[in-house]
Amino acid sequence: MEKVPVVDCLQYANWSEEVFREMRAGGVSAVHATIAYHENFREMIDNIEEWNGWFQAFPDLIFMGRTGDDVRRAIKEDRTAIFFGFQNPAPIEADIGMVEICHTLGARFMQLTYNNQSLTGSGWYEPRDGGVTNFGREVIGEMNRLGMAIDMSHAGERTTLEAIEISGRPITVTHANPRFWRDELRNVSDDVIKSLADSGGMLGFSLYPHHLAGGSACTLKAFCEMVAKVAEKHSAEMLGIGSDLCQNRPDTVVQWMRDGRWRKQLPARGTAEPGAQFPAPTDWFASNADFPKITAGLRQVGFSEDDVKGIMGANWIRFYDSALVPAS
Amino acid sequence: MEKVPVVDCLQYANWSEEVFREMRAGGVSAVHATIAYHENFREMIDNIEEWNGWFQAFPDLIFMGRTGDDVRRAIKEDRTAIFFGFQNPAPIEADIGMVEICHTLGARFMQLTYNNQSLTGSGWYEPRDGGVTNFGREVIGEMNRLGMAIDMSHAGERTTLEAIEISGRPITVTHANPRFWRDELRNVSDDVIKSLADSGGMLGFSLYPHHLAGGSACTLKAFCEMVAKVAEKHSAEMLGIGSDLCQNRPDTVVQWMRDGRWRKQLPARGTAEPGAQFPAPTDWFASNADFPKITAGLRQVGFSEDDVKGIMGANWIRFYDSALVPAS
Repeated sequence: MEKVPVVDCLQYANWSEEVFREMRAGGVSAVHATIAYHENFREMIDNIEEWNGWFQAFPDLIFMGRTGDDVRRAIKEDRTAIFFGFQNPAPIEADIGMVEICHTLGARFMQLTYNNQSLTGSGWYEPRDGGVTNFGREVIGEMNRLGMAIDMSHAGERTTLEAIEISGRPITVTHANPRFWRDELRNVSDDVIKSLADSGGMLGFSLYPHHLAGGSACTLKAFCEMVAKVAEKHSAEMLGIGSDLCQNRPDTVVQWMRDGRWRKQLPARGTAEPGAQFPAPTDWFASNADFPKITAGLRQVGFSEDDVKGIMGANWIRFYDSALVPAS
Repeated sequence: MEKVPVVDCLQYANWSEEVFREMRAGGVSAVHATIAYHENFREMIDNIEEWNGWFQAFPDLIFMGRTGDDVRRAIKEDRTAIFFGFQNPAPIEADIGMVEICHTLGARFMQLTYNNQSLTGSGWYEPRDGGVTNFGREVIGEMNRLGMAIDMSHAGERTTLEAIEISGRPITVTHANPRFWRDELRNVSDDVIKSLADSGGMLGFSLYPHHLAGGSACTLKAFCEMVAKVAEKHSAEMLGIGSDLCQNRPDTVVQWMRDGRWRKQLPARGTAEPGAQFPAPTDWFASNADFPKITAGLRQVGFSEDDVKGIMGANWIRFYDSALVPAS
């Protein structure tokens, strides 16, 4: 049987040789790695420098990915292509020219918002969703021109639908699940899924327990049945995985993700406020080595081998091929 | 007769469509453009953004160059490949990881010093030349690894000789003339030229009047005779042009080059102190359109056609081919 390509379109693991080896163990050929949440441009640069150190230290395991061809190269060379992404436009600050600078540095995905209002749009956590801003339209235009994928995970509903509408190229929600399965604003409505499907976009399913029905107790079967339901309602070709794997991160990182520097009242440094802990992983997905279990799970709920390959990675590769190249 | 390739390995013109059109008129296929003197990292980014704007506005005239192949592409497509360089390591600040960041952003040349002491070495204007610093050795190592050319223009003699010695790859002085012709510390000694020659390095001749014997009154013939003398003493294959063309820059730019932000006592903003004016150009080199005159001048002093091609561009192309690729 031809190998199933595996692409994970969102991780924020505590990167290490161990994690990179687990990517190889799980047959993961590409990972979209978050390199910034609330970091400004200069702070994001430090994070790239850290990645450059890993690329230099572990060339047999990982390399920087920029195009769909890099995923094929990774498959061929038994390595993992790491694609940089921001979960917030904070690194571009208020400067439209920064989109190209960040693209040159390797950024291939950028969320327009992370929970709160950003300069480009509204997050799901805001009391009001003002949609895509003036600057947001400009940023979408630049991302379209350069071939940087627009990621609407963590965005408000109106902002998401407007971004799909405004963008001249298909966009993505890399890590979220349908609200019909777990009804939370952080997950996506049927309208959003339909709009993504109609525009050639992609939805990546999250394996983060807070996004799963039943949380950490969610079974692999329940997850795969949900995937089958979305495939039936919409299309299997728009589906992939964006695990949101935050393996080995301390709880203080949840605090950073949630709070950045936007609010004053915070618990003492080094502690985590109630609710700001990483949930326990499910018993079927705790590291990159677990991807083959999902492949098996999708087969068991009746997906064709073509659909399994698509959802596990081939659909992302097709999306990367079209979304991560400059506009012609 | 086969076309003479023209490469200018140092300019800081006041870039504009007019200047880019003159590059085409002069048949200039590659220009090493200074994008930073005293700019810190963030300020240098603004300068790249400005260049990105020009690349987008004038794609028929210019594009960003990264390798020797880009010069051949420029020759083929009748365009000019612009290679980014810093005349000072200010943009990397005190951060070794920044060398790779700047390389990713396109920087292909970096001077270790600009007149004064830098974090990597001593400039010619310092009272004492301490040679290459601890950080300087690290920076040379990174530049060697990545394929960023080390440019020792404006450096002190000891710092220059040590950099040639320390570097595992050939380096360059992109814009200076021999001291035997105009005896100033900013120009290069026979020892430096010999050391460059022995190590496979390159010397680019400056056309900046302050570096010419006789200044603005220097004749084309005198310049070309000096080139012939260096070729005879050392080798024609290590020679090229680094014009130091600062066309259309106001005199306040001389002030910025000289003073950056390092000294307090400066003339009022917008004025130029005595001596801090751009010299009048020679009557044979005032813009990129004048390069064919130099080609003709070199022929007239008796250079073979092969040597003329080498000095006007082919030697730089060979250097770019080896110096601007990652270490193997």
